[in-house]
Amino acid sequence: MQKVAVIMGSKSDLPVMQDAIDILKEFNIVVEVDIVSAHRTPEKLFDFSKNAHTRGINVIIAGAGGAAHLPGMVASLSPLPVIGVPVKSSNSIDGWDSVLSILQMPGGVPVATVALNGAKNAGILAAQIIGATQPDVRETIIRYKESLKDKVTASSKDL
Amino acid sequence: MQKVAVIMGSKSDLPVMQDAIDILKEFNIVVEVDIVSAHRTPEKLFDFSKNAHTRGINVIIAGAGGAAHLPGMVASLSPLPVIGVPVKSSNSIDGWDSVLSILQMPGGVPVATVALNGAKNAGILAAQIIGATQPDVRETIIRYKESLKDKVTASSKDL
Amino acid sequence: MQKVAVIMGSKSDLPVMQDAIDILKEFNIVVEVDIVSAHRTPEKLFDFSKNAHTRGINVIIAGAGGAAHLPGMVASLSPLPVIGVPVKSSNSIDGWDSVLSILQMPGGVPVATVALNGAKNAGILAAQIIGATQPDVRETIIRYKESLKDKVTASSKDL
Amino acid sequence: MQKVAVIMGSKSDLPVMQDAIDILKEFNIVVEVDIVSAHRTPEKLFDFSKNAHTRGINVIIAGAGGAAHLPGMVASLSPLPVIGVPVKSSNSIDGWDSVLSILQMPGGVPVATVALNGAKNAGILAAQIIGATQPDVRETIIRYKESLKDKVTASSKDL
Amino acid sequence: MQKVAVIMGSKSDLPVMQDAIDILKEFNIVVEVDIVSAHRTPEKLFDFSKNAHTRGINVIIAGAGGAAHLPGMVASLSPLPVIGVPVKSSNSIDGWDSVLSILQMPGGVPVATVALNGAKNAGILAAQIIGATQPDVRETIIRYKESLKDKVTASSKDL
Amino acid sequence: MQKVAVIMGSKSDLPVMQDAIDILKEFNIVVEVDIVSAHRTPEKLFDFSKNAHTRGINVIIAGAGGAAHLPGMVASLSPLPVIGVPVKSSNSIDGWDSVLSILQMPGGVPVATVALNGAKNAGILAAQIIGATQPDVRETIIRYKESLKDKVTASSKDL
Amino acid sequence: MQKVAVIMGSKSDLPVMQDAIDILKEFNIVVEVDIVSAHRTPEKLFDFSKNAHTRGINVIIAGAGGAAHLPGMVASLSPLPVIGVPVKSSNSIDGWDSVLSILQMPGGVPVATVALNGAKNAGILAAQIIGATQPDVRETIIRYKESLKDKVTASSKDL
Amino acid sequence: MQKVAVIMGSKSDLPVMQDAIDILKEFNIVVEVDIVSAHRTPEKLFDFSKNAHTRGINVIIAGAGGAAHLPGMVASLSPLPVIGVPVKSSNSIDGWDSVLSILQMPGGVPVATVALNGAKNAGILAAQIIGATQPDVRETIIRYKESLKDKVTASSKDL
Repeated sequence: MQKVAVIMGSKSDLPVMQDAIDILKEFNIVVEVDIVSAHRTPEKLFDFSKNAHTRGINVIIAGAGGAAHLPGMVASLSPLPVIGVPVKSSNSIDGWDSVLSILQMPGGVPVATVALNGAKNAGILAAQIIGATQPDVRETIIRYKESLKDKVTASSKDL
Repeated sequence: MQKVAVIMGSKSDLPVMQDAIDILKEFNIVVEVDIVSAHRTPEKLFDFSKNAHTRGINVIIAGAGGAAHLPGMVASLSPLPVIGVPVKSSNSIDGWDSVLSILQMPGGVPVATVALNGAKNAGILAAQIIGATQPDVRETIIRYKESLKDKVTASSKDL
Repeated sequence: MQKVAVIMGSKSDLPVMQDAIDILKEFNIVVEVDIVSAHRTPEKLFDFSKNAHTRGINVIIAGAGGAAHLPGMVASLSPLPVIGVPVKSSNSIDGWDSVLSILQMPGGVPVATVALNGAKNAGILAAQIIGATQPDVRETIIRYKESLKDKVTASSKDL
Repeated sequence: MQKVAVIMGSKSDLPVMQDAIDILKEFNIVVEVDIVSAHRTPEKLFDFSKNAHTRGINVIIAGAGGAAHLPGMVASLSPLPVIGVPVKSSNSIDGWDSVLSILQMPGGVPVATVALNGAKNAGILAAQIIGATQPDVRETIIRYKESLKDKVTASSKDL
Repeated sequence: MQKVAVIMGSKSDLPVMQDAIDILKEFNIVVEVDIVSAHRTPEKLFDFSKNAHTRGINVIIAGAGGAAHLPGMVASLSPLPVIGVPVKSSNSIDGWDSVLSILQMPGGVPVATVALNGAKNAGILAAQIIGATQPDVRETIIRYKESLKDKVTASSKDL
Repeated sequence: MQKVAVIMGSKSDLPVMQDAIDILKEFNIVVEVDIVSAHRTPEKLFDFSKNAHTRGINVIIAGAGGAAHLPGMVASLSPLPVIGVPVKSSNSIDGWDSVLSILQMPGGVPVATVALNGAKNAGILAAQIIGATQPDVRETIIRYKESLKDKVTASSKDL
Repeated sequence: MQKVAVIMGSKSDLPVMQDAIDILKEFNIVVEVDIVSAHRTPEKLFDFSKNAHTRGINVIIAGAGGAAHLPGMVASLSPLPVIGVPVKSSNSIDGWDSVLSILQMPGGVPVATVALNGAKNAGILAAQIIGATQPDVRETIIRYKESLKDKVTASSKDL
Repeated sequence: MQKVAVIMGSKSDLPVMQDAIDILKEFNIVVEVDIVSAHRTPEKLFDFSKNAHTRGINVIIAGAGGAAHLPGMVASLSPLPVIGVPVKSSNSIDGWDSVLSILQMPGGVPVATVALNGAKNAGILAAQIIGATQPDVRETIIRYKESLKDKVTASSKDL
């Protein structure tokens, strides 16, 4: 059974990050949710990141705003693929700070970055990562993509 | 046997994208390389993307510059995880165009974006994606991370 | 009889794109409207783009937000002039993403880009394109420009 | 016989604008070239713009750098479709100034903007505009697009 | 008697530009107000700019938003000092478009640019320009600067 | 006899600021040149700014790079019109820092900002400010504008 | 007894700057508050900055918006460490102006810049500066950091 | 005896960071230099940050490029004041990434950020922090500021 951890730097990120949780549940993937702050709980960050793969987690989704160090630090400490969600927080400079803090990782330590506030896509990407090697999950993705098509076709008829 | 496809929009992207090919080979992962232009060879883009997963490819890495549509269009057509590499081409507006064209995908169609010219990290991320479910590849990642540490320790002694 | 197709990536783009439809109707140009999503309905994108010119369409207006690939992909597949309208969607990074994704097309595949949310200008430009060779439509443009002048003169008197 | 005028704000823009002239000649379209500076020769700007369509010109391509007012002012004075080429001049702020000065035209007066230094695409777009109603020119565009494909296929084999 | 003209591209700019009118009146400088659109009334722009100095105007303040060509075109046509006010209009890209369209004028044709929506400062600058050679107006400026000081001192006591 | 002071924050700004000195000399306007650093010689800044108008100076041109405080601080202390030249220094963030530090002055204290590295335009603007009330200097400006026209006409013939 | 001065360019900055005052009081550090405008009260700026260290002040926090010259000018005149708080004021260009005006100081005159509207962090940093050599204040910081941890742990349990 | 630690994320940052080391030595302050990578040596980062204050270090200067997490993570783990130096590395997006990753820290965990590549100012700021409570170091700062003045006066005479 594959498992995805969804963590975020602050409880205020939850309204954005909920989209990742929801879509993963829709895909019947087990989700674990926690608040891990790189800046306020660095020890927890270490413990979480060092042990996630030994606890059976396969993919980590990490969301944070401003100078967002959570995704990059988890990626530094864990061998698992880490998906970063830039969150547009208050006092952010239009989201540029979290986008660049997550995206521009140095050589050796990648973070799979998605769009600003793109938690839903983070969830889908986590499922695709599992589906890279698990045929049943890939089938779920194929069906999901079909459903996107159907919605556009329906809205097209509404015009 | 897992396989990664590395595609790019133009032969001029090869010097950047070579880093992905090299690190994947270092990790003993099978790599397939091709030029697929979203704008100049749209039919090839369709064929490639529709069939990649049926041909045994597990992860796709796509690099492009300017208004970079290749990674997003492949992600639209394939159920596989797609890693996008923004390439800083000549006449780019400082790379902002390729970064935003790849990163800011709409809900439903994620692209795992890495840093500007970050092809090496795209290769490592592809390996981590395979390692999400394959223990032997994950071990390779763990050893690679150790080697990063050793290099810093050595350069620290040089000071 | 000349015809313009107005397409958009999502029904949520309609409030912006309606301005193009309205001004074209004001100019007595036949308009066809549809939703075509590059990322969610790539096959429809192909069919639409490949056949538009054989169905008697002369100009295509395409609006999209975020990593906006619709105008560029249509331009890749159709020999017709394609006008791109960057739409400022929610979660956009201030509109920069759609502007750059549409404007910065590579050599060989132009998109005639107008201002952010500038659908009205897209409609006028489509009329000007038809008017480039059709004297009666050009006359309509000349009268329209006169009317702009009259409105400024009137508002000037109001001061 | 269709005719395209290629104008630019300064002789220093010629190395960039030459790409438009070359591709139009390749397409066998008659080209007229001149230097018209919005800021240094405003009267010439007026004369040129007011009379271009009466002199048999069908499309105008205008390139300029910095606070680039040439394309917008021509569009203000002429009923013809105007294609704007942002030129990255010395002392430009990374090209942002010319891009925004040309792209962000107010409602009523469109400029068909292409990529920074994208003069080649301006030439192709001018041909597509003529081809919107002229079948023979459209055929040239279709053949040109095929040639793009062939070049990618060739470079793909070189890998 | 010195005179300042305050012009703007659209009546919608008046709420911003009123600050220039008010401060000039406070300084007892004669003000003339009009709407002159570079893009919709180019002939009026020419007439106004060519004749302003022969009608006894000493300084011109011009405000406009988006691809703001009004201040630069007036500067091109008039020998008078032209003060440009970038106006943050709706659909502006955060004001960057009007700032760069006004500021980045080419060598030979300066526009004295003030802050985004900085019409009040445009009025003060116009007075300072007159005061550069007129001692009585300079005295008004000196007294105005003293009043700024007094307001800060008062607000400091309120703490 | 009118006089213009050209000051700069560092001797390294002289290659850029020389353009202002040269054009003012060409216009037969008396120029005074000095280095005044807001951050390294604040007392000199105070003395210079407080006394410039009593020493017969009519206009001040101030150039600086990075967090450029010189033009704004002079404007704070002097009743004269102050023209600010943003200088693109090494370690500048593409010139944005000096542009915004000079342009975005608060209400009450304007700086007449010209383009990045636009010292030549600063010199012309200073002459226009004097010409706002001095007919002979205005005549010089009119002749200068004619000469710009002639150069374009000549380069146009060279094509 | 250590003392921190909190100054700001305008009373309108107080709602932002209050966070610095509050946290310093929470840390039992003596705070002095005043309004000092670089542009409207330059003499007060001089007096304040020249004498702060002789009056027993150890650290200065200065907040300002737009072309924010206050922190840099205080740093120019005082030997004390100066912390700059960029304030996002109305008519600011998204805060970029105050951030760059404060951050990009030339060599020789540092300002310790914190995040946009980051007055709370300015207060904490001032305490850390005192704690650099005062063990009791450092203990307060250590306890404060523990409290941050406790809040995250509590919010984690709430999930 | 006060001590400053200068750390950096990579040996390639040394040419920039050397300026901090040099000026601190000029001020007779003890400096300790090391390479500590947040992403490649996270354990070393923890050890260093947790123990710096117990080893007699008073101020930490941390420089890093790209998604620069080093200064913020050290600030998260240490009670000492941390000065962050954004380094403009290759593949950086014009330095914006390191600036925003260091500056935009969340409430509770400040980093004293200096200009892009501003290592010299980081060294001066570290000395000012020590001088906040140590009169002899403050005297050194006062003399240093006098020397800046002298250099400007000398270069002024050279004109």
